[in-house]
Amino acid sequence: MPEDVLTDAAPRLIALDWGTSSLRAYLMGEGGAVLETHRLPLGIMHVEGRDFAGASERAVGDWRRRWPGLPALAAGMIGSAQGWVEAPYVPCPAGLAELAGGLMPVPGGALSIIPGVVQHGDVPNVMRGEETQILGALPSHGDGRFVMPGTHSKWVEVTGGRIERFGTHMTGELFAVLRRHSILGRFVGEDDPPSSAEVARAAFERGVEALRDAPSGLSPLLFSARSLVLTGGLPREASLDYLSGLLIGDELRAGLHEMRDSLALVGDPALCERYRQALAIFGVTAVELLGDTAAAGLWRIAEAAGLTGAGLETNP
Amino acid sequence: MPEDVLTDAAPRLIALDWGTSSLRAYLMGEGGAVLETHRLPLGIMHVEGRDFAGASERAVGDWRRRWPGLPALAAGMIGSAQGWVEAPYVPCPAGLAELAGGLMPVPGGALSIIPGVVQHGDVPNVMRGEETQILGALPSHGDGRFVMPGTHSKWVEVTGGRIERFGTHMTGELFAVLRRHSILGRFVGEDDPPSSAEVARAAFERGVEALRDAPSGLSPLLFSARSLVLTGGLPREASLDYLSGLLIGDELRAGLHEMRDSLALVGDPALCERYRQALAIFGVTAVELLGDTAAAGLWRIAEAAGLTGAGLETNP
Repeated sequence: MPEDVLTDAAPRLIALDWGTSSLRAYLMGEGGAVLETHRLPLGIMHVEGRDFAGASERAVGDWRRRWPGLPALAAGMIGSAQGWVEAPYVPCPAGLAELAGGLMPVPGGALSIIPGVVQHGDVPNVMRGEETQILGALPSHGDGRFVMPGTHSKWVEVTGGRIERFGTHMTGELFAVLRRHSILGRFVGEDDPPSSAEVARAAFERGVEALRDAPSGLSPLLFSARSLVLTGGLPREASLDYLSGLLIGDELRAGLHEMRDSLALVGDPALCERYRQALAIFGVTAVELLGDTAAAGLWRIAEAAGLTGAGLETNP
Repeated sequence: MPEDVLTDAAPRLIALDWGTSSLRAYLMGEGGAVLETHRLPLGIMHVEGRDFAGASERAVGDWRRRWPGLPALAAGMIGSAQGWVEAPYVPCPAGLAELAGGLMPVPGGALSIIPGVVQHGDVPNVMRGEETQILGALPSHGDGRFVMPGTHSKWVEVTGGRIERFGTHMTGELFAVLRRHSILGRFVGEDDPPSSAEVARAAFERGVEALRDAPSGLSPLLFSARSLVLTGGLPREASLDYLSGLLIGDELRAGLHEMRDSLALVGDPALCERYRQALAIFGVTAVELLGDTAAAGLWRIAEAAGLTGAGLETNP
């Protein structure tokens, strides 16, 4: 990093978004500016021998050596029972104060971990990492409903700046297991060329529409991702796009049942764009796309916990 | 087979219920009486080198040698593109006449295969084998709705003795792939002892009830098979029973949306009993359990096709 950048924006925080499959580290400066980013395939499931200290060193060791006093904060599955140290869930409603108040230091204190959030009840729900993205999204969107597409999509209601309740939809994981392990994945091989963008989009939209118009949901429709191909009504190579439309459509049908206004999409931009297309088919067009807000959330929680105020020195 | 049995009930038909994973062969006598049964793990996916003639010989060769003139009829996936010879689907509505009229002989004519049934439309459906079970169930139940639980459950409406329309629910396959390949299967290992019958039944019923009372279906509930365990609300070893309840509950919720009266369960008796329990939770108690009606259906179709009338000789 050139000296002038250091002068303009002195580092204030090392922030880690540490999930199941990947680890993103941010060197952050005043006001939450992202100065540098490291991305490593060291999600907690890929850390050999559970050597999280070693993985952390690989991700942020150079920053630590350069700025030894820099505080570090992490969010995500790194705080689960399978992670470095368990940061017990805080219950809903949970906002900045509850999350900042529940930080859990790792042994040695090299970094602190943001707790996940639990919602108790007949259908309990848990999240780890999404709470931090929500906190990062709030300054631009404010209260409302946040749709966070992914392996386990979250639909989160925020009132008064706090996570009030949320739901989980296993849409991404369902698609992955059906594609790889069920009869619905048989028409498209791993190495087959993808269908054209036009064909793929039409099949995806058809799946969403079928779900939107179904009187009784996904159960009687799922098999149509096979039967439509067998009867000549769908190109074989588009069957997975149609399946994706069915599954995302089912998530939207259920999620929109409760709330259609003030929606914001948070997460991977390409996946959010796919959900935006699907929401439009359900007639929901006033949707904000916020992208990945993890770094912003880490910064806000660090500030609330008083981690970012300390004077810092640069190693000579 | 002792001689007196032969005298009392001379064989009239070799009938095969030949599916994806198993092959059941019936030696049938006058009136459709089952004289002998062979069951082999020679479903079409397990027949090496697609040597269906050889598999047939293993299943019924002894009967053929003893009664060389005996006609043979098969139903199921053996008539699919992956089977011995493809017996093209007949369209709905399909009854005895349509099925008997669509028989397809294998090369050499050693047996004929009953066609499957296709229902065209926006959500097409196909069946192979279930049409024969339906025909076998009709004499005792008559017109109505037939629920056929399985890997791909079928819900079949019969009017005037003909299959009018039907739906497919991938409940059994969904359970299998979620158990083996998703995060929902992680709490119970393949070799773990099963939960007690009481705990298992309570968890299954709880899953069915959760689905019955859900305003928006399975999508927001599926993850509760994990989150309930994580939050101490469900014993770890009962998580798959609860998952089974959710999935079967979702099938019933969708299926009962259209028709609740005159239901009959057809298929594996243990699985039908599970569905009967679940139907009772939905308030549907007038349900007939018909068991496996494949042999009866094969007999009826053979009769309609004039296969059972020929005089037969016994080898000396």
